[in-house]
Amino acid sequence: MSTTHESHLVGLIGQGVLPSLTPALHEREADQHRIRYLYRPLDLDIMSYEPTQVGSLLRAAAEFGYTAVNVTHPCKQLVMDALDEASDDTQRLGAANTVLIRDGKFIGHNTDFSGFSSALATGLPGVAVDRVVQLGAGGAGSAVSYALLAAGVSSLSIADLDVARAEERAASLSALFPDASVTAFDRGDIGAALGNADGFVHATPVGMHSHPGMPVEASLLRPDLWVADVVYRPLETELVRTARDLGCRVLDGGYMAVGQAADAFTLITGISPDRDRMRRHFLELIAEGR
Amino acid sequence: MSTTHESHLVGLIGQGVLPSLTPALHEREADQHRIRYLYRPLDLDIMSYEPTQVGSLLRAAAEFGYTAVNVTHPCKQLVMDALDEASDDTQRLGAANTVLIRDGKFIGHNTDFSGFSSALATGLPGVAVDRVVQLGAGGAGSAVSYALLAAGVSSLSIADLDVARAEERAASLSALFPDASVTAFDRGDIGAALGNADGFVHATPVGMHSHPGMPVEASLLRPDLWVADVVYRPLETELVRTARDLGCRVLDGGYMAVGQAADAFTLITGISPDRDRMRRHFLELIAEGR
Repeated sequence: MSTTHESHLVGLIGQGVLPSLTPALHEREADQHRIRYLYRPLDLDIMSYEPTQVGSLLRAAAEFGYTAVNVTHPCKQLVMDALDEASDDTQRLGAANTVLIRDGKFIGHNTDFSGFSSALATGLPGVAVDRVVQLGAGGAGSAVSYALLAAGVSSLSIADLDVARAEERAASLSALFPDASVTAFDRGDIGAALGNADGFVHATPVGMHSHPGMPVEASLLRPDLWVADVVYRPLETELVRTARDLGCRVLDGGYMAVGQAADAFTLITGISPDRDRMRRHFLELIAEGR
Repeated sequence: MSTTHESHLVGLIGQGVLPSLTPALHEREADQHRIRYLYRPLDLDIMSYEPTQVGSLLRAAAEFGYTAVNVTHPCKQLVMDALDEASDDTQRLGAANTVLIRDGKFIGHNTDFSGFSSALATGLPGVAVDRVVQLGAGGAGSAVSYALLAAGVSSLSIADLDVARAEERAASLSALFPDASVTAFDRGDIGAALGNADGFVHATPVGMHSHPGMPVEASLLRPDLWVADVVYRPLETELVRTARDLGCRVLDGGYMAVGQAADAFTLITGISPDRDRMRRHFLELIAEGR
Protein backbone atom coordinates (compact mmCIF):
# COMPACT_ATOMS: atom_id res chain seq x y z
CA MET A 1 0.00 0.00 0.00
CA SER A 2 1.18 3.46 -0.76
CA THR A 3 2.97 5.32 1.97
CA THR A 4 2.30 8.60 0.18
CA HIS A 5 -0.97 10.43 0.60
CA GLU A 6 -2.00 9.63 -2.94
CA SER A 7 -4.97 7.36 -3.39
CA HIS A 8 -7.27 6.51 -6.24
CA LEU A 9 -11.05 6.48 -6.09
CA VAL A 10 -12.38 5.36 -9.45
CA GLY A 11 -15.95 4.97 -10.68
CA LEU A 12 -17.67 3.20 -13.54
CA ILE A 13 -20.46 5.33 -15.01
CA GLY A 14 -23.08 3.64 -17.15
CA GLN A 15 -26.25 1.60 -17.16
CA GLY A 16 -26.25 -1.92 -15.76
CA VAL A 17 -22.64 -1.71 -14.64
CA LEU A 18 -22.93 -3.76 -11.45
CA PRO A 19 -21.82 -7.04 -13.08
CA SER A 20 -18.72 -5.45 -14.63
CA LEU A 21 -15.43 -7.22 -13.99
CA THR A 22 -13.45 -4.00 -14.44
CA PRO A 23 -13.56 -2.91 -10.76
CA ALA A 24 -12.13 -6.21 -9.59
CA LEU A 25 -9.47 -6.17 -12.33
CA HIS A 26 -8.29 -2.70 -11.36
CA GLU A 27 -8.38 -3.27 -7.61
CA ARG A 28 -6.48 -6.52 -7.66
CA GLU A 29 -3.78 -5.13 -9.95
CA ALA A 30 -3.48 -2.06 -7.70
CA ASP A 31 -2.94 -4.36 -4.72
CA GLN A 32 0.07 -5.83 -6.47
CA HIS A 33 1.56 -2.37 -6.78
CA ARG A 34 0.68 -1.57 -3.16
CA ILE A 35 -1.32 1.51 -4.03
CA ARG A 36 -4.52 2.60 -2.32
CA TYR A 37 -7.20 2.03 -4.93
CA LEU A 38 -10.95 1.68 -4.70
CA TYR A 39 -13.21 1.20 -7.70
CA ARG A 40 -16.97 1.67 -7.40
CA PRO A 41 -19.82 1.18 -9.88
CA LEU A 42 -21.85 4.37 -10.40
CA ASP A 43 -24.98 3.06 -12.07
CA LEU A 44 -27.10 5.71 -13.78
CA ASP A 45 -30.35 3.88 -13.11
CA ILE A 46 -29.66 3.29 -9.43
CA MET A 47 -28.50 6.88 -8.96
CA SER A 48 -31.41 8.34 -10.92
CA TYR A 49 -29.34 10.17 -13.50
CA GLU A 50 -30.41 10.38 -17.13
CA PRO A 51 -27.64 9.49 -19.61
CA THR A 52 -27.69 13.13 -20.77
CA GLN A 53 -26.84 14.18 -17.20
CA VAL A 54 -23.49 12.42 -17.29
CA GLY A 55 -21.75 15.79 -16.93
CA SER A 56 -23.57 16.47 -13.66
CA LEU A 57 -22.75 13.02 -12.44
CA LEU A 58 -19.10 13.57 -13.29
CA ARG A 59 -18.99 16.85 -11.38
CA ALA A 60 -20.65 15.26 -8.37
CA ALA A 61 -18.20 12.35 -8.50
CA ALA A 62 -15.34 14.86 -8.41
CA GLU A 63 -16.87 16.53 -5.34
CA PHE A 64 -17.15 13.16 -3.65
CA GLY A 65 -13.44 12.57 -4.06
CA TYR A 66 -13.30 10.52 -7.26
CA THR A 67 -10.02 10.86 -9.13
CA ALA A 68 -11.09 9.12 -12.35
CA VAL A 69 -14.00 7.32 -13.95
CA ASN A 70 -14.53 4.81 -16.68
CA VAL A 71 -17.57 5.55 -18.81
CA THR A 72 -19.60 2.96 -20.62
CA HIS A 73 -22.92 2.56 -22.43
CA PRO A 74 -24.80 4.80 -23.03
CA CYS A 75 -22.55 7.72 -22.08
CA LYS A 76 -19.34 7.41 -24.08
CA GLN A 77 -20.39 9.97 -26.66
CA LEU A 78 -22.52 12.05 -24.28
CA VAL A 79 -19.63 12.57 -21.90
CA MET A 80 -17.61 14.39 -24.56
CA ASP A 81 -19.47 17.64 -23.87
CA ALA A 82 -18.44 17.57 -20.22
CA LEU A 83 -14.70 17.28 -20.89
CA ASP A 84 -12.18 20.07 -20.49
CA GLU A 85 -9.60 18.24 -22.56
CA ALA A 86 -9.40 15.05 -24.57
CA SER A 87 -6.63 13.09 -26.27
CA ASP A 88 -6.41 13.44 -30.05
CA ASP A 89 -7.71 9.92 -30.62
CA THR A 90 -10.61 10.52 -28.25
CA GLN A 91 -11.57 13.67 -30.11
CA ARG A 92 -11.35 11.88 -33.45
CA LEU A 93 -13.43 8.98 -32.15
CA GLY A 94 -15.94 11.31 -30.54
CA ALA A 95 -16.18 8.95 -27.59
CA ALA A 96 -14.40 8.61 -24.25
CA ASN A 97 -14.38 5.68 -21.86
CA THR A 98 -11.86 7.02 -19.36
CA VAL A 99 -11.96 10.43 -17.70
CA LEU A 100 -9.18 11.62 -15.44
CA ILE A 101 -10.13 14.21 -12.85
CA ARG A 102 -7.09 16.44 -12.30
CA ASP A 103 -7.27 19.72 -10.41
CA GLY A 104 -11.00 19.83 -11.06
CA LYS A 105 -10.57 19.36 -14.81
CA PHE A 106 -11.97 16.45 -16.81
CA ILE A 107 -9.57 14.89 -19.29
CA GLY A 108 -10.95 12.30 -21.69
CA HIS A 109 -9.26 9.22 -23.10
CA ASN A 110 -10.40 6.20 -25.05
CA THR A 111 -8.92 2.90 -23.99
CA ASP A 112 -11.49 0.84 -25.89
CA PHE A 113 -9.56 1.72 -29.01
CA SER A 114 -6.10 1.46 -27.46
CA GLY A 115 -7.13 -1.68 -25.60
CA PHE A 116 -8.14 -3.40 -28.82
CA SER A 117 -4.90 -2.25 -30.42
CA SER A 118 -2.84 -3.85 -27.68
CA ALA A 119 -5.09 -6.92 -27.69
CA LEU A 120 -4.41 -7.38 -31.38
CA ALA A 121 -0.67 -6.94 -30.91
CA THR A 122 -0.58 -9.26 -27.89
CA GLY A 123 -3.05 -11.93 -28.91
CA LEU A 124 -2.51 -12.09 -32.66
CA PRO A 125 1.08 -10.95 -33.22
CA GLY A 126 2.19 -10.80 -36.82
CA VAL A 127 -1.14 -11.50 -38.49
CA ALA A 128 -1.82 -9.97 -41.89
CA VAL A 129 -4.02 -6.91 -41.58
CA ASP A 130 -4.41 -5.89 -45.17
CA ARG A 131 -8.09 -6.70 -45.59
CA VAL A 132 -10.40 -7.00 -42.56
CA VAL A 133 -14.14 -7.58 -42.36
CA GLN A 134 -16.01 -6.27 -39.37
CA LEU A 135 -19.52 -7.11 -38.24
CA GLY A 136 -21.10 -4.56 -35.89
CA ALA A 137 -20.75 -0.78 -36.02
CA GLY A 138 -22.01 0.18 -32.55
CA GLY A 139 -19.99 1.67 -29.72
CA ALA A 140 -17.49 -1.15 -29.28
CA GLY A 141 -17.40 -1.59 -33.05
CA SER A 142 -16.36 2.01 -33.61
CA ALA A 143 -13.43 1.74 -31.26
CA VAL A 144 -12.41 -1.53 -32.90
CA SER A 145 -12.60 -0.05 -36.42
CA TYR A 146 -10.51 2.88 -35.33
CA ALA A 147 -7.93 0.57 -33.78
CA LEU A 148 -7.80 -1.59 -36.91
CA LEU A 149 -7.21 1.40 -39.16
CA ALA A 150 -4.65 2.84 -36.75
CA ALA A 151 -2.91 -0.57 -36.83
CA GLY A 152 -2.52 -0.31 -40.59
CA VAL A 153 -5.53 -2.12 -42.04
CA SER A 154 -5.73 -0.85 -45.61
CA SER A 155 -9.16 -2.18 -46.48
CA LEU A 156 -11.90 -2.36 -43.85
CA SER A 157 -15.38 -3.56 -44.74
CA ILE A 158 -18.11 -2.95 -42.17
CA ALA A 159 -21.60 -4.43 -41.94
CA ASP A 160 -24.33 -3.84 -39.39
CA LEU A 161 -27.99 -4.79 -39.07
CA ASP A 162 -28.51 -1.03 -39.10
CA VAL A 163 -27.26 -0.32 -42.63
CA ALA A 164 -27.32 3.45 -42.18
CA ARG A 165 -25.14 3.16 -39.10
CA ALA A 166 -22.55 1.10 -41.00
CA GLU A 167 -22.55 3.65 -43.80
CA GLU A 168 -22.15 6.59 -41.46
CA ARG A 169 -19.32 4.85 -39.67
CA ALA A 170 -17.55 4.01 -42.92
CA ALA A 171 -17.87 7.60 -44.10
CA SER A 172 -16.53 9.13 -40.91
CA LEU A 173 -13.66 6.65 -40.69
CA SER A 174 -12.78 7.30 -44.34
CA ALA A 175 -12.43 10.96 -43.49
CA LEU A 176 -10.15 10.15 -40.55
CA PHE A 177 -8.05 7.62 -42.45
CA PRO A 178 -7.97 8.92 -46.04
CA ASP A 179 -5.25 6.47 -47.09
CA ALA A 180 -7.39 3.46 -46.21
CA SER A 181 -10.46 2.07 -47.94
CA VAL A 182 -13.37 1.90 -45.53
CA THR A 183 -16.65 0.66 -46.95
CA ALA A 184 -20.02 -0.44 -45.69
CA PHE A 185 -21.51 -3.60 -47.12
CA ASP A 186 -24.79 -5.43 -46.82
CA ARG A 187 -24.81 -8.08 -44.17
CA GLY A 188 -26.17 -10.61 -46.64
CA ASP A 189 -22.96 -10.28 -48.65
CA ILE A 190 -20.69 -11.35 -45.81
CA GLY A 191 -19.70 -14.56 -47.60
CA ALA A 192 -18.20 -12.61 -50.47
CA ALA A 193 -16.62 -10.09 -48.14
CA LEU A 194 -14.92 -12.77 -46.09
CA GLY A 195 -13.76 -14.59 -49.19
CA ASN A 196 -10.65 -12.51 -49.67
CA ALA A 197 -10.18 -11.19 -46.11
CA ASP A 198 -7.21 -11.69 -43.80
CA GLY A 199 -9.25 -11.28 -40.67
CA PHE A 200 -12.77 -11.13 -39.31
CA VAL A 201 -13.76 -9.02 -36.32
CA HIS A 202 -17.08 -9.60 -34.62
CA ALA A 203 -18.57 -6.71 -32.63
CA THR A 204 -22.28 -7.49 -32.12
CA PRO A 205 -23.93 -9.07 -29.05
CA VAL A 206 -24.42 -12.44 -30.77
CA GLY A 207 -22.73 -15.20 -28.80
CA MET A 208 -23.27 -13.56 -25.42
CA HIS A 209 -25.00 -15.66 -22.78
CA SER A 210 -28.13 -13.64 -23.47
CA HIS A 211 -27.77 -13.91 -27.27
CA PRO A 212 -26.32 -17.36 -27.95
CA GLY A 213 -25.50 -18.42 -31.49
CA MET A 214 -23.12 -17.82 -34.38
CA PRO A 215 -22.92 -14.38 -35.99
CA VAL A 216 -21.90 -15.96 -39.32
CA GLU A 217 -22.24 -19.40 -40.81
CA ALA A 218 -19.38 -21.67 -39.81
CA SER A 219 -18.88 -22.60 -43.46
CA LEU A 220 -17.61 -19.07 -44.14
CA LEU A 221 -14.62 -19.53 -41.84
CA ARG A 222 -11.35 -21.06 -43.05
CA PRO A 223 -8.03 -21.77 -41.30
CA ASP A 224 -6.14 -18.87 -42.85
CA LEU A 225 -8.68 -16.31 -41.63
CA TRP A 226 -7.94 -14.88 -38.20
CA VAL A 227 -10.99 -14.23 -36.04
CA ALA A 228 -11.43 -11.70 -33.25
CA ASP A 229 -14.50 -11.58 -31.03
CA VAL A 230 -15.46 -8.66 -28.83
CA VAL A 231 -17.88 -10.74 -26.75
CA TYR A 232 -16.29 -12.09 -23.56
CA ARG A 233 -19.19 -13.55 -21.63
CA PRO A 234 -18.71 -16.38 -22.33
CA LEU A 235 -15.08 -16.12 -23.21
CA GLU A 236 -15.44 -19.19 -25.41
CA THR A 237 -18.22 -18.00 -27.70
CA GLU A 238 -19.57 -20.29 -30.37
CA LEU A 239 -17.63 -18.23 -32.91
CA VAL A 240 -14.36 -18.50 -31.00
CA ARG A 241 -14.76 -22.25 -30.44
CA THR A 242 -15.75 -22.96 -34.02
CA ALA A 243 -12.92 -20.87 -35.46
CA ARG A 244 -10.34 -22.41 -33.15
CA ASP A 245 -11.54 -25.90 -34.02
CA LEU A 246 -11.13 -25.03 -37.68
CA GLY A 247 -7.53 -23.98 -37.06
CA CYS A 248 -8.01 -20.23 -37.25
CA ARG A 249 -5.87 -17.92 -35.14
CA VAL A 250 -8.33 -16.51 -32.63
CA LEU A 251 -8.54 -13.50 -30.32
CA ASP A 252 -11.20 -13.87 -27.65
CA GLY A 253 -13.06 -10.86 -26.25
CA GLY A 254 -11.14 -11.04 -23.01
CA TYR A 255 -8.08 -9.50 -24.64
CA MET A 256 -9.92 -6.29 -25.46
CA ALA A 257 -11.61 -6.21 -22.04
CA VAL A 258 -8.26 -6.60 -20.29
CA GLY A 259 -6.55 -4.23 -22.72
CA GLN A 260 -8.96 -1.39 -22.03
CA ALA A 261 -8.67 -1.95 -18.28
CA ALA A 262 -4.87 -2.11 -18.39
CA ASP A 263 -4.64 1.07 -20.42
CA ALA A 264 -7.07 2.88 -18.11
CA PHE A 265 -5.05 1.69 -15.11
CA THR A 266 -1.91 3.17 -16.66
CA LEU A 267 -3.61 6.50 -17.31
CA ILE A 268 -5.03 6.68 -13.80
CA THR A 269 -1.97 5.60 -11.84
CA GLY A 270 0.98 6.29 -14.12
CA ILE A 271 2.00 2.67 -13.48
CA SER A 272 2.29 -0.01 -16.18
CA PRO A 273 0.31 -2.99 -15.00
CA ASP A 274 1.32 -6.60 -15.58
CA ARG A 275 -1.02 -7.41 -18.47
CA ASP A 276 -0.46 -11.16 -18.29
CA ARG A 277 -1.37 -11.10 -14.62
CA MET A 278 -4.50 -9.07 -15.39
CA ARG A 279 -5.44 -11.56 -18.10
CA ARG A 280 -5.01 -14.46 -15.66
CA HIS A 281 -7.13 -12.65 -13.11
CA PHE A 282 -9.77 -11.97 -15.73
CA LEU A 283 -9.87 -15.66 -16.64
CA GLU A 284 -10.27 -16.53 -12.96
CA LEU A 285 -13.19 -14.14 -12.59
CA ILE A 286 -14.87 -15.53 -15.68
CA ALA A 287 -14.28 -19.09 -14.42
CA GLU A 288 -15.92 -18.12 -11.12
CA GLY A 289 -18.99 -17.17 -13.14
CA ARG A 290 -18.64 -13.46 -12.36
CA MET B 1 -5.35 -6.19 1.23
CA SER B 2 -8.64 -7.95 1.38
CA THR B 3 -9.21 -10.87 -0.92
CA THR B 4 -12.95 -10.54 -0.36
CA HIS B 5 -15.02 -8.08 -2.31
CA GLU B 6 -15.60 -5.96 0.76
CA SER B 7 -14.09 -2.51 0.79
CA HIS B 8 -14.60 0.60 2.84
CA LEU B 9 -15.12 4.08 1.48
CA VAL B 10 -15.39 6.48 4.39
CA GLY B 11 -16.00 10.22 4.45
CA LEU B 12 -15.55 13.01 6.96
CA ILE B 13 -18.46 15.46 6.82
CA GLY B 14 -17.99 18.89 8.36
CA GLN B 15 -16.61 22.37 7.88
CA GLY B 16 -12.87 22.87 7.54
CA VAL B 17 -12.13 19.15 7.64
CA LEU B 18 -9.21 19.10 5.22
CA PRO B 19 -6.50 19.30 7.93
CA SER B 20 -8.04 16.43 9.92
CA LEU B 21 -5.67 13.63 10.89
CA THR B 22 -8.49 11.10 11.06
CA PRO B 23 -8.30 9.99 7.40
CA ALA B 24 -4.60 9.17 7.70
CA LEU B 25 -5.14 7.39 11.03
CA HIS B 26 -7.87 5.17 9.60
CA GLU B 27 -6.11 4.42 6.33
CA ARG B 28 -2.81 3.47 7.86
CA GLU B 29 -4.43 1.20 10.44
CA ALA B 30 -6.50 -0.43 7.67
CA ASP B 31 -3.28 -1.14 5.76
CA GLN B 32 -2.02 -3.11 8.73
CA HIS B 33 -5.11 -5.28 8.57
CA ARG B 34 -4.81 -5.61 4.79
CA ILE B 35 -8.28 -4.27 4.10
CA ARG B 36 -9.23 -2.00 1.22
CA TYR B 37 -9.97 1.31 2.86
CA LEU B 38 -10.17 4.82 1.52
CA TYR B 39 -11.08 7.82 3.65
CA ARG B 40 -12.01 11.14 2.02
CA PRO B 41 -12.80 14.58 3.47
CA LEU B 42 -16.28 15.81 2.44
CA ASP B 43 -16.08 19.48 3.30
CA LEU B 44 -19.45 21.24 3.45
CA ASP B 45 -18.05 24.57 2.27
CA ILE B 46 -16.17 23.11 -0.69
CA MET B 47 -19.17 21.01 -1.69
CA SER B 48 -21.63 23.88 -1.25
CA TYR B 49 -23.85 22.16 1.28
CA GLU B 50 -25.41 24.04 4.18
CA PRO B 51 -24.98 22.33 7.56
CA THR B 52 -28.76 21.77 7.62
CA GLN B 53 -28.42 19.77 4.39
CA VAL B 54 -26.29 17.12 6.04
CA GLY B 55 -29.03 14.56 5.35
CA SER B 56 -28.87 15.23 1.61
CA LEU B 57 -25.12 15.01 1.70
CA LEU B 58 -25.34 11.69 3.52
CA ARG B 59 -27.76 10.28 0.94
CA ALA B 60 -25.54 11.44 -1.91
CA ALA B 61 -22.49 9.91 -0.24
CA ALA B 62 -24.34 6.60 -0.04
CA GLU B 63 -25.14 6.81 -3.76
CA PHE B 64 -21.49 7.46 -4.49
CA GLY B 65 -20.49 4.27 -2.75
CA TYR B 66 -19.61 5.47 0.73
CA THR B 67 -20.03 2.82 3.41
CA ALA B 68 -19.64 5.10 6.44
CA VAL B 69 -18.95 8.67 7.43
CA ASN B 70 -17.61 10.49 10.41
CA VAL B 71 -19.47 13.70 11.16
CA THR B 72 -17.97 16.70 12.86
CA HIS B 73 -18.70 20.39 13.52
CA PRO B 74 -21.30 21.74 12.83
CA CYS B 75 -23.35 18.66 11.94
CA LYS B 76 -23.19 16.25 14.87
CA GLN B 77 -26.61 17.26 16.19
CA LEU B 78 -28.10 18.11 12.79
CA VAL B 79 -27.33 14.67 11.42
CA MET B 80 -29.60 13.01 14.01
CA ASP B 81 -32.69 13.77 11.91
CA ALA B 82 -31.25 11.88 8.95
CA LEU B 83 -30.62 8.65 10.85
CA ASP B 84 -32.70 5.50 10.55
CA GLU B 85 -31.28 4.07 13.74
CA ALA B 86 -28.93 5.20 16.49
CA SER B 87 -27.25 3.54 19.44
CA ASP B 88 -28.79 4.23 22.84
CA ASP B 89 -25.90 6.44 23.88
CA THR B 90 -26.14 8.40 20.65
CA GLN B 91 -29.83 9.00 21.19
CA ARG B 92 -29.23 10.09 24.76
CA LEU B 93 -26.42 12.41 23.70
CA GLY B 94 -28.47 13.79 20.80
CA ALA B 95 -25.32 13.83 18.67
CA ALA B 96 -23.62 11.38 16.31
CA ASN B 97 -20.08 11.49 14.94
CA THR B 98 -20.12 8.16 13.11
CA VAL B 99 -22.77 6.97 10.67
CA LEU B 100 -22.67 3.49 9.20
CA ILE B 101 -24.39 3.05 5.84
CA ARG B 102 -25.80 -0.48 5.72
CA ASP B 103 -28.27 -1.62 3.09
CA GLY B 104 -29.15 2.00 2.44
CA LYS B 105 -29.89 2.70 6.10
CA PHE B 106 -28.06 5.26 8.23
CA ILE B 107 -27.06 4.03 11.68
CA GLY B 108 -25.64 6.58 14.09
CA HIS B 109 -23.01 6.15 16.75
CA ASN B 110 -21.01 8.47 18.97
CA THR B 111 -17.36 7.63 19.38
CA ASP B 112 -16.46 11.02 20.83
CA PHE B 113 -18.02 9.80 24.04
CA SER B 114 -16.72 6.25 23.81
CA GLY B 115 -13.34 7.50 22.63
CA PHE B 116 -12.97 9.70 25.70
CA SER B 117 -14.08 6.80 27.88
CA SER B 118 -11.37 4.57 26.48
CA ALA B 119 -8.85 7.43 26.59
CA LEU B 120 -9.55 7.85 30.30
CA ALA B 121 -9.22 4.12 30.94
CA THR B 122 -6.05 3.86 28.87
CA GLY B 123 -4.27 7.08 29.71
CA LEU B 124 -5.30 7.57 33.34
CA PRO B 125 -5.98 4.09 34.69
CA GLY B 126 -7.15 3.94 38.27
CA VAL B 127 -7.57 7.66 38.92
CA ALA B 128 -10.24 8.79 41.37
CA VAL B 129 -13.34 9.98 39.56
CA ASP B 130 -15.55 11.01 42.42
CA ARG B 131 -15.50 14.76 41.81
CA VAL B 132 -14.58 16.21 38.44
CA VAL B 133 -14.57 19.80 37.21
CA GLN B 134 -15.07 20.44 33.52
CA LEU B 135 -14.48 23.65 31.61
CA GLY B 136 -16.30 23.88 28.26
CA ALA B 137 -19.81 22.64 27.47
CA GLY B 138 -19.74 22.68 23.64
CA GLY B 139 -19.86 19.68 21.33
CA ALA B 140 -16.69 17.97 22.49
CA GLY B 141 -17.51 18.97 26.04
CA SER B 142 -20.90 17.25 25.92
CA ALA B 143 -19.41 13.96 24.81
CA VAL B 144 -16.76 14.25 27.52
CA SER B 145 -19.32 14.98 30.25
CA TYR B 146 -21.36 12.01 29.14
CA ALA B 147 -18.30 9.78 29.18
CA LEU B 148 -17.31 11.00 32.66
CA LEU B 149 -20.74 10.28 34.07
CA ALA B 150 -20.87 6.91 32.32
CA ALA B 151 -17.47 6.16 33.89
CA GLY B 152 -18.91 6.68 37.34
CA VAL B 153 -18.18 10.32 38.19
CA SER B 154 -20.58 11.11 41.03
CA SER B 155 -20.16 14.86 41.08
CA LEU B 156 -19.56 16.78 37.85
CA SER B 157 -19.28 20.58 37.86
CA ILE B 158 -19.42 22.31 34.51
CA ALA B 159 -18.51 25.87 33.57
CA ASP B 160 -18.65 27.61 30.22
CA LEU B 161 -18.24 31.19 29.02
CA ASP B 162 -21.83 30.74 27.87
CA VAL B 163 -23.45 30.29 31.29
CA ALA B 164 -26.82 29.29 29.84
CA ARG B 165 -25.19 26.54 27.81
CA ALA B 166 -23.49 25.13 30.92
CA GLU B 167 -26.79 25.21 32.78
CA GLU B 168 -28.68 23.50 29.98
CA ARG B 169 -26.03 20.83 29.73
CA ALA B 170 -26.04 20.23 33.46
CA ALA B 171 -29.82 19.95 33.48
CA SER B 172 -29.98 17.48 30.59
CA LEU B 173 -27.15 15.36 32.00
CA SER B 174 -28.82 15.32 35.40
CA ALA B 175 -31.90 13.87 33.75
CA LEU B 176 -29.81 11.18 32.03
CA PHE B 177 -27.75 10.33 35.14
CA PRO B 178 -30.15 10.87 38.05
CA ASP B 179 -27.79 9.21 40.55
CA ALA B 180 -25.03 11.76 39.88
CA SER B 181 -24.81 15.39 40.86
CA VAL B 182 -24.30 17.53 37.77
CA THR B 183 -24.15 21.26 38.33
CA ALA B 184 -23.21 24.36 36.40
CA PHE B 185 -20.99 26.91 38.09
CA ASP B 186 -19.72 30.35 37.26
CA ARG B 187 -16.36 30.35 35.58
CA GLY B 188 -15.09 32.89 38.07
CA ASP B 189 -15.55 30.31 40.82
CA ILE B 190 -13.25 27.73 39.28
CA GLY B 191 -10.71 28.07 42.09
CA ALA B 192 -13.24 26.94 44.65
CA ALA B 193 -14.57 24.22 42.33
CA LEU B 194 -11.10 22.77 41.76
CA GLY B 195 -10.27 22.97 45.46
CA ASN B 196 -11.88 19.64 46.31
CA ALA B 197 -11.86 17.97 42.85
CA ASP B 198 -10.14 14.74 41.86
CA GLY B 199 -9.79 15.74 38.23
CA PHE B 200 -10.03 18.63 35.83
CA VAL B 201 -11.15 18.26 32.23
CA HIS B 202 -10.56 21.06 29.78
CA ALA B 203 -12.82 21.23 26.70
CA THR B 204 -12.52 24.74 25.26
CA PRO B 205 -10.28 25.90 22.38
CA VAL B 206 -7.78 27.64 24.71
CA GLY B 207 -4.30 26.24 24.17
CA MET B 208 -4.78 25.50 20.49
CA HIS B 209 -2.21 26.97 18.11
CA SER B 210 -4.82 29.56 17.20
CA HIS B 211 -5.78 30.24 20.83
CA PRO B 212 -2.57 29.93 22.86
CA GLY B 213 -2.65 30.33 26.61
CA MET B 214 -3.80 28.69 29.85
CA PRO B 215 -7.52 28.05 30.45
CA VAL B 216 -7.00 28.33 34.23
CA GLU B 217 -4.35 29.89 36.43
CA ALA B 218 -1.46 27.55 37.04
CA SER B 219 -1.72 28.25 40.76
CA LEU B 220 -5.04 26.37 40.83
CA LEU B 221 -3.36 23.10 39.85
CA ARG B 222 -1.84 20.72 42.38
CA PRO B 223 -0.04 17.37 42.06
CA ASP B 224 -2.96 15.28 43.30
CA LEU B 225 -5.34 16.70 40.66
CA TRP B 226 -5.41 14.76 37.40
CA VAL B 227 -5.78 16.90 34.29
CA ALA B 228 -7.27 15.96 30.92
CA ASP B 229 -7.11 18.24 27.89
CA VAL B 230 -9.26 17.84 24.78
CA VAL B 231 -7.00 20.07 22.68
CA TYR B 232 -4.44 18.10 20.65
CA ARG B 233 -2.90 20.69 18.37
CA PRO B 234 -0.42 21.13 19.93
CA LEU B 235 -0.38 17.89 21.84
CA GLU B 236 1.68 19.57 24.54
CA THR B 237 -0.64 22.45 25.42
CA GLU B 238 0.40 24.97 28.02
CA LEU B 239 -2.07 23.28 30.38
CA VAL B 240 -0.65 19.81 29.77
CA ARG B 241 2.94 20.97 30.17
CA THR B 242 2.26 22.99 33.29
CA ALA B 243 0.28 20.20 34.92
CA ARG B 244 2.91 17.59 34.10
CA ASP B 245 5.67 19.82 35.45
CA LEU B 246 3.69 20.15 38.67
CA GLY B 247 3.51 16.36 38.96
CA CYS B 248 -0.14 15.93 37.96
CA ARG B 249 -1.24 12.81 36.11
CA VAL B 250 -2.09 14.10 32.67
CA LEU B 251 -4.17 12.97 29.68
CA ASP B 252 -3.35 14.88 26.49
CA GLY B 253 -5.97 15.48 23.79
CA GLY B 254 -4.43 12.90 21.51
CA TYR B 255 -5.90 10.09 23.57
CA MET B 256 -9.46 11.21 22.86
CA ALA B 257 -8.67 11.89 19.18
CA VAL B 258 -7.20 8.42 18.77
CA GLY B 259 -9.92 6.84 20.89
CA GLN B 260 -12.73 8.24 18.72
CA ALA B 261 -10.92 7.13 15.56
CA ALA B 262 -10.21 3.65 16.94
CA ASP B 263 -13.81 3.16 18.02
CA ALA B 264 -15.10 4.39 14.64
CA PHE B 265 -12.70 2.02 12.89
CA THR B 266 -14.08 -0.87 14.91
CA LEU B 267 -17.67 0.06 14.07
CA ILE B 268 -16.89 0.43 10.37
CA THR B 269 -14.75 -2.66 9.88
CA GLY B 270 -15.69 -5.00 12.71
CA ILE B 271 -11.96 -5.22 13.44
CA SER B 272 -10.31 -4.13 16.69
CA PRO B 273 -7.44 -1.84 15.78
CA ASP B 274 -4.14 -1.72 17.61
CA ARG B 275 -4.70 1.40 19.69
CA ASP B 276 -1.06 1.77 20.71
CA ARG B 277 -0.04 1.67 17.06
CA MET B 278 -2.68 4.26 16.22
CA ARG B 279 -1.41 6.46 19.04
CA ARG B 280 2.17 6.15 17.74
CA HIS B 281 0.98 7.02 14.25
CA PHE B 282 -0.93 10.00 15.61
CA LEU B 283 2.19 11.24 17.39
CA GLU B 284 4.16 10.88 14.15
CA LEU B 285 1.60 12.92 12.23
CA ILE B 286 1.61 15.62 14.87
CA ALA B 287 5.42 15.64 14.87
CA GLU B 288 5.35 16.09 11.09
CA GLY B 289 3.33 19.24 11.68
CA ARG B 290 0.16 17.82 10.09
